[in-house]
Amino acid sequence: MAAASIGVVGLGVMGSSLSLNLAEKTREVVAGFDLSAEKGAATEARAATEGLAELFASYSELGRFVGALAVPRRIVLLVPAGPPVDACLRDLGELLEPGDVVVDGGNEWYENTERRERELAAKGIHYMGCGISGGAEGARHGPALMVGGPRDAWDLVSGPLVSIAAKAPTDGKPCVSYCGKGGAGNYVKMVHNGIEYGDMQLIGEAYALLRASGRSNENISALFRRWNAVDHPLRSFLIEITAKILVVEDDDDGSPLVDRVLDRTGSKGTGKWTVKDAADLGVPAPTVSAALEARYVSSLKDLRLKASEILGTPKTAPSFTDIQLEDALVCSKICSYAQGLALLEAAATKHGWDLRLADVLEGWRGGCIIRANLLVDFHAAVANDPDFDNLLLAPEIAAILEARHLGWRALVSAAITNGVPVPAMANSLAYYDALRSPRLLSAALTQAQRDCFGGHTYNRTDEAPTLAFTSDWLALAAKKQLPDDDDDDDHGGGASA
Amino acid sequence: MAAASIGVVGLGVMGSSLSLNLAEKTREVVAGFDLSAEKGAATEARAATEGLAELFASYSELGRFVGALAVPRRIVLLVPAGPPVDACLRDLGELLEPGDVVVDGGNEWYENTERRERELAAKGIHYMGCGISGGAEGARHGPALMVGGPRDAWDLVSGPLVSIAAKAPTDGKPCVSYCGKGGAGNYVKMVHNGIEYGDMQLIGEAYALLRASGRSNENISALFRRWNAVDHPLRSFLIEITAKILVVEDDDDGSPLVDRVLDRTGSKGTGKWTVKDAADLGVPAPTVSAALEARYVSSLKDLRLKASEILGTPKTAPSFTDIQLEDALVCSKICSYAQGLALLEAAATKHGWDLRLADVLEGWRGGCIIRANLLVDFHAAVANDPDFDNLLLAPEIAAILEARHLGWRALVSAAITNGVPVPAMANSLAYYDALRSPRLLSAALTQAQRDCFGGHTYNRTDEAPTLAFTSDWLALAAKKQLPDDDDDDDHGGGASA
Repeated sequence: MAAASIGVVGLGVMGSSLSLNLAEKTREVVAGFDLSAEKGAATEARAATEGLAELFASYSELGRFVGALAVPRRIVLLVPAGPPVDACLRDLGELLEPGDVVVDGGNEWYENTERRERELAAKGIHYMGCGISGGAEGARHGPALMVGGPRDAWDLVSGPLVSIAAKAPTDGKPCVSYCGKGGAGNYVKMVHNGIEYGDMQLIGEAYALLRASGRSNENISALFRRWNAVDHPLRSFLIEITAKILVVEDDDDGSPLVDRVLDRTGSKGTGKWTVKDAADLGVPAPTVSAALEARYVSSLKDLRLKASEILGTPKTAPSFTDIQLEDALVCSKICSYAQGLALLEAAATKHGWDLRLADVLEGWRGGCIIRANLLVDFHAAVANDPDFDNLLLAPEIAAILEARHLGWRALVSAAITNGVPVPAMANSLAYYDALRSPRLLSAALTQAQRDCFGGHTYNRTDEAPTLAFTSDWLALAAKKQLPDDDDDDDHGGGASA
Repeated sequence: MAAASIGVVGLGVMGSSLSLNLAEKTREVVAGFDLSAEKGAATEARAATEGLAELFASYSELGRFVGALAVPRRIVLLVPAGPPVDACLRDLGELLEPGDVVVDGGNEWYENTERRERELAAKGIHYMGCGISGGAEGARHGPALMVGGPRDAWDLVSGPLVSIAAKAPTDGKPCVSYCGKGGAGNYVKMVHNGIEYGDMQLIGEAYALLRASGRSNENISALFRRWNAVDHPLRSFLIEITAKILVVEDDDDGSPLVDRVLDRTGSKGTGKWTVKDAADLGVPAPTVSAALEARYVSSLKDLRLKASEILGTPKTAPSFTDIQLEDALVCSKICSYAQGLALLEAAATKHGWDLRLADVLEGWRGGCIIRANLLVDFHAAVANDPDFDNLLLAPEIAAILEARHLGWRALVSAAITNGVPVPAMANSLAYYDALRSPRLLSAALTQAQRDCFGGHTYNRTDEAPTLAFTSDWLALAAKKQLPDDDDDDDHGGGASA
């Protein structure tokens, strides 16, 4: 076998799938490494069944694996994030040579990638972080790839990565974006996953509302199939698989399998990272935070069972139209992306990444979990606006919101009135209503309170916003001699509420 | 002057006020230190006007300050958190002796306190972190104190801290709680501040709704005064100061000063820490996250002005009753505290703090910014329940929610219908509705989707929750031969939405 043009470390589901994708699309030899010889053998067997036996070889000894690669060597890591990556790099670091490139394909925290880049650069080894979306299916047939790291390293690996990436349906462009230096790729993947949390929570809320209104799984599946029509704004991978999931029957008795799935959601961390980093950057991201919190509440299954007995459960069914639900989903999704894009902008500015939002959106049009018709509209909005501020301000997007927001309101109102929790839809609506408020009275009062009890100062509407003012609010109020003053600081008196 | 029984480092507003409080309440000499001799002189002048000249002396040379203290020395730091504290401890560390105690009174991140405790313990010096609430007024006349650190160090400083603490109105107990070892005190203060963000956001949302419905500041002030009646469940420090703030007139022309306050909220960090740590601990805290995000949206003033021109502003006024607004405030506040207490429980468990929620709530009944009538109800609910799970499950609290939730729903619905953002009220309602759901359909669907595209597995409702299952959802659905299948993975086709 000829020298391998690229190597993959880690032959679990993702590594195995990606190896075969590389072999199939580049038509060059791929070397795979795993400490487990069985995993290597399993991948070789899979390669054989797919007619790729000549283009894949596995190794369970790292030195032989490295030796099988043509120089400069290109290696993709698909091992669990964290200490396994550091262990792997420690071993590889002793075998690789200056000019070689390592690409970490795991869901890594971007700062870890940057640390490893610095450590390996000392040995002349290039290091990149690449977010991969699309699951095992995507890894095998066409993932979306979000790559970050040194530009010259990108030039060395872009060939194979472009070959294996998903192709966007409209124009066939490969769904791979070079996001910038350092951990930019990992960061973009993190935000992708945050948006994914939001998309899934919105779909989940829609599903819960439909069931609460009395619709069957089969009936709801049919609705989702209508939403997945070729030209429908809601058409997406997640909408499509939902339609399918809802008709799957349980082996045992033919009832819907989804009704046997325990309602306790797990999570892997990227949604949490998105929420935390948005908090750090001062970027409001209420749709993803609602999704994360909903997962956390779902994990409190025993508490919920107790609470339902003590607090009761809804007595009425929500009443709404399919169009209103569609309005809510479209508008909430738009808000979710507006937040995600704002977060990417803020991070890119802070870290000096030359990140182009248009390229990121373009790269999300295929392969990834969040692929959807609306991404094309979002890409157009961003690409057409050199002074892009926020997605909600793009004319076409604003027009959608104008046309649909009343239905959105009616839908959220119906949910709230009837006790169906819709935190992501409601948070998205609050984001829209707050963002379009030229004057947020709640914030003005908060500033006055902060100055009153803490002397934190405020700015004035009729002065330059950089000038700080402070007032002795309580003394000024005392001059007014208010009636019914009953405030001898007896605030802990207790009351029947 | 006799040896000082306690010293305060940092004679800014807080340090100066706390020094005089200590002098007045302990009747023992207090030494104050500040690099700025002027601040020292200013505090001495203040002491003189308050008849405390004999009980306070200032120093601007650290060695003399330390020398003026009786041993074992007790020092409270009130310098800005972060590097200034480290610098201060570096200098003090060379002058203090084993057995001396330093108490950091700033809003410090709890892990920093724990690091400093370890560093100083190496020299035999005790270190504690103490959250102080109540602003300058509280610092002078009676703050709430939340103390954490070694038990034996607490025994050395509890005397003066108990003396200066606010006294709870009902029973006169000092509002100071020993929260546990390490950074427990800082953590409790952090959660206090997170709850404070939530309380302020809820009041702000109520204010915005009232103004949107056409009420004047004066009229709203009268409503807040009614809510501040001695037995009213909403009576609180924040409600009281809001009533006063709303009648303050601008010097220039006598219009309400609050209308001249720029609607761009600042923040100091503790709310953000609360949101981030809740995310890390897997504890849902949607009311404080809504408050934080609302502050972030408010800071986007220029964007909001642009957005209002493109997206429009509400055309209708919300219609609701004062009782419904009261219902929304009471219920939302309850949910906010339920989240805060759950966060404290989770943190205490993780860090091994012997934290008693009842003691914490008791210590919040006076002095602090969040002091309120309802805290007495919350304390009773926790104190009476040895198996405390969540505040919402306490019988008296559940009864309040049962009585008021319909008004809450009507109020949030009115806001949503008319475009007034109420994220904290809506998030609180979603928390309540989700927590009392014995089956969260959105979560079941999310788990099915995660297994479908990522093989993440799910648990079954009819099996032990520890058993993991996985299904090939798409293959199983394919057996159903659904009509109108239009899913040749063409999801990026674009659409007019």
